[in-house]
Amino acid sequence: MTQKHAALLVIGNELLSGKVADQNIVVLARMLRSLGVILARVAVIPDERPLIASEVRALAAAHDVVFTSGGVGPTHDDVTIDGVADAFGVAVAVFPELEAMLRAHYREHLTEGHLLMARAPVGARLVSTAEHPWPTVVKENVWILPGVPAIFAMKMAVIGAELGGAPGFVSQAVYTTLDEGPLKPLLDRVVAAHPEVEVGSYPKWRDPRYQTKVTFDGLDEAKVLAARLAFEASLPDGTRAHVDDE
Amino acid sequence: MTQKHAALLVIGNELLSGKVADQNIVVLARMLRSLGVILARVAVIPDERPLIASEVRALAAAHDVVFTSGGVGPTHDDVTIDGVADAFGVAVAVFPELEAMLRAHYREHLTEGHLLMARAPVGARLVSTAEHPWPTVVKENVWILPGVPAIFAMKMAVIGAELGGAPGFVSQAVYTTLDEGPLKPLLDRVVAAHPEVEVGSYPKWRDPRYQTKVTFDGLDEAKVLAARLAFEASLPDGTRAHVDDE
Repeated sequence: MTQKHAALLVIGNELLSGKVADQNIVVLARMLRSLGVILARVAVIPDERPLIASEVRALAAAHDVVFTSGGVGPTHDDVTIDGVADAFGVAVAVFPELEAMLRAHYREHLTEGHLLMARAPVGARLVSTAEHPWPTVVKENVWILPGVPAIFAMKMAVIGAELGGAPGFVSQAVYTTLDEGPLKPLLDRVVAAHPEVEVGSYPKWRDPRYQTKVTFDGLDEAKVLAARLAFEASLPDGTRAHVDDE
Repeated sequence: MTQKHAALLVIGNELLSGKVADQNIVVLARMLRSLGVILARVAVIPDERPLIASEVRALAAAHDVVFTSGGVGPTHDDVTIDGVADAFGVAVAVFPELEAMLRAHYREHLTEGHLLMARAPVGARLVSTAEHPWPTVVKENVWILPGVPAIFAMKMAVIGAELGGAPGFVSQAVYTTLDEGPLKPLLDRVVAAHPEVEVGSYPKWRDPRYQTKVTFDGLDEAKVLAARLAFEASLPDGTRAHVDDE
């Protein structure tokens, strides 16, 4: 079974200027991992319509599915909807279903500004679930997600409902008191002997419990387990650290 | 005075798989902002040598300075040094200065694996300061930084010492109880009247103190202040929120 490949395009001057720290990358990465979808690339770019258009066009052509984060409010720096429309060479239109939901939500406080959030690229579909009735705009293979972390995280359930079905990745970890210098030959051996398992090595800086976390990832649990056990058996006595998974 | 433009290339399967959350983007973004350098793009890609090479080549050609994060240890998944060398069409060599520091550091625990960290692209220079004597490898306009957050953060002082000198950005913020719907016409007016000031609008989700944070950024403090005061004067009575900067 071939895995789907995804890309995330994070749009926001506030991230590039350091005003706020990104919270969305890891949330999407974990969701996709659980769905067996490979997140192949993340890009962070400013709120510039031509740049958004060219990035979306390139990412959408090279990946099965693309997610954008940010730039979907009503103000001057919210140009993601227009950028995605440009990427596909279509106009932007007011979607009656979105307008009706905005009118019902804001009622007597509704402004022209709020109604700008009823705009979406022509031909987009609106995805929702019973638990998450507020629609998510999807144009071709591009999911347009809000950047506000609390709302971005809520959208993960909708993505799971739509993209789920493939088996997810299995991940196991071993902690050791060895640093990467003496570990290198042991890692080379397990990597060579278990080609279908992805082996990661992550040094920890000044942790009294261990020096390196070694991870084993793959789609086949038996193969992941075999690689981990082979690696553990190769560790010198007394160099395995017992750490609760972090 | 023209601002320098920078890019950050984050290298690491562990970020794309959601095993760890990035901590480095905001650290570099803030440092560059204080130096008056514009961070124009961030990309996150896997530990794949050909991909690193093509990304570094493209980013180095399009930006004044590029920083890489991650992939500089001694194990099979540490291929950043080789990828940067490939980007510039040069070989990798053992640098005697790096080898001497590794031998002095590890002493009798030194392994062949450790010595792999003495490798750097041919023609790279080694940057250090009196406070941070461990060298940072810089090839052409590409700074090769470690991904471990504690060490990455320590490198910021070296970057500041080397790239400092230009005036930094000034940033001011106003908080309001208005949401972006009614704010839109006020924002459009201040944006149009103050073209040299970058105006950002950031909705807060379910905060009892305010609904939107509006930021004013620029290189000229007087112009930033003028834009902020004009915006504040345009806010309806009672809609300004007094929040300690966050």
